[in-house]
Amino acid sequence: MTAYEIITRKRDGKQLSDSEIEFMINGFVTNRIPKYQMSAFLMAIFFNGMNFHELNHLTNVFLNSGKRIDLSHLKNKKIDKHSTGGVGDKVSIILAPLVAAAGVYVPMISGRGLGHTGGTLDKLQSIPGFKTNYSIKEFTDQMSKIGVCLAGQTDELVPADKKIYALRDVTATVPSIPLITASIMSKKLAEGIDGLVLDIKVGKGAFLTEISAAKRLAYTLIEVGEKNGVETVAYLTDMSNPLGNTVGNWIEILECIDCLQGKVSGPLKDVTLQLAGAMLFLAQKAESIQAGVEQCKILLENGTAWQKFLDIVSVQGGDIGYLEHPEKYPKAKFQKDYYAQNDGWIHGINALDVGLAAVELGAGRQKVNDRIDPVAGISLHANRGAPTKKGEPIFTIFTNRKHSLDGVYTRLQNAIDIKDDQPAASKDIIQYFDKSCLA
Amino acid sequence: MTAYEIITRKRDGKQLSDSEIEFMINGFVTNRIPKYQMSAFLMAIFFNGMNFHELNHLTNVFLNSGKRIDLSHLKNKKIDKHSTGGVGDKVSIILAPLVAAAGVYVPMISGRGLGHTGGTLDKLQSIPGFKTNYSIKEFTDQMSKIGVCLAGQTDELVPADKKIYALRDVTATVPSIPLITASIMSKKLAEGIDGLVLDIKVGKGAFLTEISAAKRLAYTLIEVGEKNGVETVAYLTDMSNPLGNTVGNWIEILECIDCLQGKVSGPLKDVTLQLAGAMLFLAQKAESIQAGVEQCKILLENGTAWQKFLDIVSVQGGDIGYLEHPEKYPKAKFQKDYYAQNDGWIHGINALDVGLAAVELGAGRQKVNDRIDPVAGISLHANRGAPTKKGEPIFTIFTNRKHSLDGVYTRLQNAIDIKDDQPAASKDIIQYFDKSCLA
Repeated sequence: MTAYEIITRKRDGKQLSDSEIEFMINGFVTNRIPKYQMSAFLMAIFFNGMNFHELNHLTNVFLNSGKRIDLSHLKNKKIDKHSTGGVGDKVSIILAPLVAAAGVYVPMISGRGLGHTGGTLDKLQSIPGFKTNYSIKEFTDQMSKIGVCLAGQTDELVPADKKIYALRDVTATVPSIPLITASIMSKKLAEGIDGLVLDIKVGKGAFLTEISAAKRLAYTLIEVGEKNGVETVAYLTDMSNPLGNTVGNWIEILECIDCLQGKVSGPLKDVTLQLAGAMLFLAQKAESIQAGVEQCKILLENGTAWQKFLDIVSVQGGDIGYLEHPEKYPKAKFQKDYYAQNDGWIHGINALDVGLAAVELGAGRQKVNDRIDPVAGISLHANRGAPTKKGEPIFTIFTNRKHSLDGVYTRLQNAIDIKDDQPAASKDIIQYFDKSCLA
Repeated sequence: MTAYEIITRKRDGKQLSDSEIEFMINGFVTNRIPKYQMSAFLMAIFFNGMNFHELNHLTNVFLNSGKRIDLSHLKNKKIDKHSTGGVGDKVSIILAPLVAAAGVYVPMISGRGLGHTGGTLDKLQSIPGFKTNYSIKEFTDQMSKIGVCLAGQTDELVPADKKIYALRDVTATVPSIPLITASIMSKKLAEGIDGLVLDIKVGKGAFLTEISAAKRLAYTLIEVGEKNGVETVAYLTDMSNPLGNTVGNWIEILECIDCLQGKVSGPLKDVTLQLAGAMLFLAQKAESIQAGVEQCKILLENGTAWQKFLDIVSVQGGDIGYLEHPEKYPKAKFQKDYYAQNDGWIHGINALDVGLAAVELGAGRQKVNDRIDPVAGISLHANRGAPTKKGEPIFTIFTNRKHSLDGVYTRLQNAIDIKDDQPAASKDIIQYFDKSCLA
């Protein structure tokens, strides 16, 4: 068995055996197989795909490349949520304390932003002192202590995914269902969870722009989850427009605070409650998803979720002074407003353009090692479906990069589609899937 | 412009611009683009191909990565032949002196064997002292002196192809028409030739097993040749069975000597004469290909070609004593004969199996740096279409690797298909193409 033969077989559309998959992945992790062979192999998978048996085995080979978190000493259910990534997608930051406040264990390992989508870890790290770099022991200890942890991937967990993802990211082999599945599910299985709620973003600002592809991914993720003993459900949610009214890092934390304090309504709240409700249902804390949603509404309104968030931030080393007094936080040096030129209605705000604009302002990374500016970002004073009045502000840009102001201003101006007539209603939550879709 | 974007565009089936192709190839040659991005790019080309404009530009970017041989001071036509590689394909070694004997300049840059196919250079180097490592200046000087040179690719010529071929060879991206075309034609254009005769092998022992693919390659090579001012014709020839009756290195030189001395008949002689005749026609030394074939028959029969071969070997530092007295050459330590078990007819000898058997005996390379044993090889006492008589020898194996004897014996036994009835006649020369195929 050689890497050359295995690449050739996948190139020619053959099904790989378990041992061939192990040979490639383990060989790459231990540096016996060079990057240039792995990238050719990944591109062959991009074109020829993998059947369920292959991709499920790939997931398990990833999983077995590292350690697993053992939370079996915790008697309640451990449930996580995973999003495929979007613009303004701050759901995890609201949902984790909310669901934990309902008595569900939430062991959440999140990622960083790359490309035009933001990352939960980067947003959390805009809170001064907030720590996301955990060992498995520290992670487990915090789970025992407060029932929830918001951390990044450690080197101990799924090293194969970490190494292969870095290569996919520079070789245009990210958007492949088997590779996405193995990457997501190996990390989720390593968390030691009982249930998983997936938020599969679809639309201009998501990496999947077509509902058909998002559905295929949903089926595959659910099948791998169920096959490996994790009850898995998936929502397809809209990412044509940014989620909520902020895009950036600290600015998104501010919106999370508002939401946790019950001050926000609209798609961000709706999507968060739906996903949270499903988590409560999977945890057997609610008789139905809708009952879970109702419970979570109360926890947002009565301050319990907000209090849990403060607990998390404290335990993870963050300075809650900034959460309680956001006015203390440093300000961006430059800001610029855009005002509506006419009365009308917002028919859409191109999420991809907004995401790219945020990166330009300093809120995201163009390269893996770029530093993120926590105060850079965009405030949208209205979103799709809202009426506009001439002279009212539509968006405000915040940045420390003066040179980016004009370009981003023009880009955003073009990203916002204002028309005279009221747009048709759109669905934020497009579709729900559970294991019954596999039948 | 980034490598990532260009890989993505080719992955998504887009046509690349000239500057994108230059960015990738020149960036790789100068080490600005890493191997792992180039191999993903090559695999994307394998799947999505390139249109004529792209692949012609790719060829020229390869060509312009190095120097070109300038033979414009030689007043007669410069014509080369190129084979896509086969088992027992020793045509170049007979054809180069033969065509040069007819007064045509033959600047021939050949390759080494890899995989199951042998290489002209390895065969020539089995002649003690024979030198194939030439600078452009040395090559040009020899062309002026004797009108023919049989050399290997120097570092000065088409370094882009050299570097990319090494990567293709280990990433399963060799069998791609645009990549093959750029590789072959850039090297041939760098030779400073006026005309080119292509021998596209097709069948079990060739890398193209389907006639349809071989035809597509023929069209593409001819179109690139003509576009770049080189009159190009192509033959599809059969590589289901080994060409001639020997496979190895020194053993093939022995068959070449016999052929150059007019002692051989059959497919090897027929294919060589046909290709040589076409070269004379392209050089305007014959009024038709057939007239060229007739001239070449005479040059084989009257000893002129043989004398030219001795001249080449002398000038290139080879010891002609071994050519005139082959009995002086070292012998393989082990040999084994196979005798026919029944009367019958040979319906076929699987060329791929024979090629792989030769590698096992030591006549080829499994890895780039493997050493070749010049005396290892296989003698076929009969080939497809011949009658067999019980007890007559069918093949003899020669090797210094005792442990390989039994395995190769069994492999060859199974590779030879003997039946009771006489097989239908087969065509060694399957089809001819010239620029009229582009109309």
